[in-house]
Formats: sequence, C-alpha cells, structure tokens
Amino acid sequence: MRALVVLAAAVAVTGAAPPKKLTPGDVVTAAPPSAWRTIAADDLLVMDLAKGGRVVVQLAPDFAPVHVANVRALARGNYWDGATIYRVQDNYVAQWGLNESDRPWPTGVNPKPPAEYTRPLKGMTVKPLGYADPYAPGAGFWKGWPVAYSAKAGWANLAHCYASVGVGRDLAPDTGTGGELYAVIGHGPRQLDRNIALIGRVIEGIDRMSSLPRGPAPMGFYTDKSLPEPITKIRLASDIPAAERPSFEYLDTSSASFAQYLRLKANRNDDFYRVAAGGVDLCNANVPVRKKG
Amino acid sequence: MRALVVLAAAVAVTGAAPPKKLTPGDVVTAAPPSAWRTIAADDLLVMDLAKGGRVVVQLAPDFAPVHVANVRALARGNYWDGATIYRVQDNYVAQWGLNESDRPWPTGVNPKPPAEYTRPLKGMTVKPLGYADPYAPGAGFWKGWPVAYSAKAGWANLAHCYASVGVGRDLAPDTGTGGELYAVIGHGPRQLDRNIALIGRVIEGIDRMSSLPRGPAPMGFYTDKSLPEPITKIRLASDIPAAERPSFEYLDTSSASFAQYLRLKANRNDDFYRVAAGGVDLCNANVPVRKKG
Repeated sequence: MRALVVLAAAVAVTGAAPPKKLTPGDVVTAAPPSAWRTIAADDLLVMDLAKGGRVVVQLAPDFAPVHVANVRALARGNYWDGATIYRVQDNYVAQWGLNESDRPWPTGVNPKPPAEYTRPLKGMTVKPLGYADPYAPGAGFWKGWPVAYSAKAGWANLAHCYASVGVGRDLAPDTGTGGELYAVIGHGPRQLDRNIALIGRVIEGIDRMSSLPRGPAPMGFYTDKSLPEPITKIRLASDIPAAERPSFEYLDTSSASFAQYLRLKANRNDDFYRVAAGGVDLCNANVPVRKKG
Repeated sequence: MRALVVLAAAVAVTGAAPPKKLTPGDVVTAAPPSAWRTIAADDLLVMDLAKGGRVVVQLAPDFAPVHVANVRALARGNYWDGATIYRVQDNYVAQWGLNESDRPWPTGVNPKPPAEYTRPLKGMTVKPLGYADPYAPGAGFWKGWPVAYSAKAGWANLAHCYASVGVGRDLAPDTGTGGELYAVIGHGPRQLDRNIALIGRVIEGIDRMSSLPRGPAPMGFYTDKSLPEPITKIRLASDIPAAERPSFEYLDTSSASFAQYLRLKANRNDDFYRVAAGGVDLCNANVPVRKKG
C-alpha cells in the first residue's frame, strides 16, 4: 500500500550509501536528557472519559494565572464529575463542562477573573520562530509554549494552535470562569488570540476529542441526548496517588535540540521532500511533548 | 449553557441600538447571486460511504490537469467501488483507495503523471491575501482556490489547507497516480506544498472523515480489520442522473463580496471580539462554498 509519507527510506545495503537526512522526529529522538523539562504534577489536568480513554491537559499558569487557579480549584472540588463533552464543531473546537446552574462553585473559584488574554513580554526570553506571522509582529517559543508578541507594545500571548485549551465565555467583558473549556480540533483559530484566555494544551488523547461525531446544531452542539461524551472525572495529577500518576516532559524550547528541530521543520529535506519550504507556521512547529517512564 | 462564540448579539429592541457589526458569515449571506460561481459537474467527485454519508470533492484541473484526468478516469471506470478509508492520522490526513495490485487501471489512466506540484503564475490574476505567508513570497486566491506563489520565480501552487485533497505517493520522482487520495483533517500541513499534487478539496462531508477513529499503527494505519471505512462508490457528478446530481457554487474570489469577507476575516470586530488580529492566515480565510438548490 502506498504511503503519503514514507517511514524509512530504503538505502542500498552495499556500497557507499549517502548519510540519511534527518527528519524533525530524528532530532527529537536524539535530544539528550538535559534538553527535556519535566512538567509539574500540579500543571497536569487528567480527564477520564466514561467510555474509556484519557485526555491530559498541560496547564499554562504563566499566561492565565487566575483562570488556571480556577481550573485547579474546580478539579480539586470534583466539579466536573459527571460533566460531558457537549459540543464538537468541525475544524474548530470540542467543548466540555456542565450548566453553571447545575452545581455551586467549589472553594477557591474566582467567579469574575480578569481578562488574561495577554501578558507582559518583559522578562520573557522568546526563541524567535524566524518567519513572518500573519497575526502578530513577532512569534516564537517560551518555556515550551508557542507565543505571539509585540516588542513595541510589550504584550505576548499564548497562540491558538491545534490542541490548545481555552476558557469558554459569553460576550466581553465576561472572561469565563474555567468551568467550560474547549480544545482546538482544527486549523489554529488564531483570530481568537488576545480575545480568550488560553489555559493550556492537550498533550495526550486529543484524538479522543477530535474523532467525536460533530454536533448537528449550530456551533456543533449535540441535540441527541445519546451523543454527549460523559466525563467520569477530572483531577490534577498532583491529587492522584504517586504510583498511578502520569508524568510528561517537553523539549526545552531554548535548547540546541529544539533549534535544530525548528530549522528542519522549516526546511524539510529528508527523502520524501523535493523542495524545502524555507519557512514554517507557528502552529506547525509543535513543541515535542512525551510521556515519562 | 455558555458558548465559546455567541451566535447573535442581543440588541435593545427599543431606543437607538447601534448598528450590528458584520461577521464574515453575514457578508457571505448578503453576497449577490452575481458573486457566486457554479462548479462544473465534471469537477465534482461524489463519494458514497457504505455506512451512510457522502463526501464531495471539488476537483482543481487548473493545478494538476493530468492527475485530475486520472481521477476522472478512475471514477468513470468504477475503480474505487469497494475501496476503503484505510488510514486516519490525527491532525494530519485521512487516506483512501485500495491496493494497486488489486485492480487494473481503467482506460485513460496515465500510470506515470508528471510532477504537477506547481503551475506557472503567468496568466493568473491573484487576489492578494494582504498578509505575510511563512511558506511562500506571496499568497492569495484565484478562481476560488487558496494559492501560494513567487512572482520572482514565476510559480504558483495550490495550498495545503484543512480539507485539501492530494495524491498519495512514494518517494520522488514518483508522483502517485490518483488511485490513493488523502484529505487534510488538521492544521494545514503547508510543508507539503510544492511536494505533492493536490487535486482539489472536500466541499461536503469532511466531518465524515475527520471524525473517524485514528488508526493505531504508525501514520494512522488501521490494523483492526473492522476499522477501515468502506466506500460503496465514487462517481463524477456528471455521470449521476441529472435529477439526483448535487450542485455547488463558490464565492468568486475576485468579487467585492469576497474582498469584504477577507477584510473581516482579518479584522473581526463583531460583538464577541475585543481585539482585531489585523491579519489572517491563508488557510483561515476559507473560500465560501455552498450547495445549490
């Protein structure tokens, strides 16, 4: 069967085979242990689905501290037990939560968080993407996250890419509490940058959301009562017994390995490619994340 | 239930309500009949799935004429009857076809098409996107398609966006025949531009592909024999009896309506938005296509 992308090039077993050209994946595999950063257990939101399967979200407290504190309080208060994924809109988002009226806020939830849509650029050492971004004057990576920024205006924001997780809200000035969250399951909807609080990204199990049936109502809401995907529970990894706790690490975006990975993402020259693009989109240079142990 | 994007803003029914700010969708709804172009029945590939549902692909003969001629010959020869969607890779592609050895090529198939990865820019009147593209010196729209180009080098290519359809191939110089096709179901993999022949885009039913379970083997191949999604048949709309033939139209990308749509896509200022991006990605300014009649 033909493959769109061939896994491994056949090289002559005799004679002087040319050195294999590296893929971005090769660079990730070869990255030394020192290039990886463990994600804190307090920054991992673990979502168990009733029909089986798990979704893990890495939280981004550096970008939306009040919203992330809310999400942690909601998880610690077992707020989402019995919630559902109730909306799946093609090439856009899957959204979960429950009616706000269904359950009181647990202790520690701020019902009116500030608009954490940008943060100060000051103090951030951003690894530049190196290519133009249509949505902001600058784009790059910081502490493992894709960011857009304006050096002149002094703001930075987490970018809406595939698997980004954000806070559902009504019209401004409402910013959402965090009780209803969405994950991006399509082309990065960057127009939402600076308009919504992003609280992290799915690092395991995004396919459990992206492969759900799309809802038939406007915006992908489910109308059939059988469709909403039930969630058994959502917990912080730090509240899960150590023996069962999942652990993840990301490739340090200030490492030499990431720099090489980014160069190759923008200049694919392995055997499948005929022409290197000479550029890459912020959302196509996904920061490598992997399970530990 | 809170919504990520609110469908309609509540405006005061009495008093001087401010005029509603237009969304891109409002502009599409208001576009006059003269701004729409009917897609030729010969450019519509209609795929009926055995479990129900239909996927329609608009062909792009202006970009890959030999591959599109192959696809038409394959449809006319009933080549895909009983084929399957056999590979679904998250945030990448769904791919379909059958083993080449399973069935001889129908009449009219060129088994070794040329590398139709770019076409001459000369003669094309491209509506510029107006914003930087990380993958090419220029980007815009022509005859309803998203294109990237180099004015200096004189080439143009159809861009890999969500729902783009391309021709699976092995390593170069092989270009694929068209017997195995893929549709993009994730963030536009623009690194494939100028490296693969694109033959069109899915204009109906992409959710039938994007919501399929991801395959467990590398590259999303299905291993469980129960998973491949059976295809009953694939036909050109021009070979379907007129009474049952589907028909579609796209918004003319050289029209004033499209220009206004594009401006609003780059500068969302309707009630949900607090800040307009001031730019848009080529793959986020999807050309509107709708069913006729």
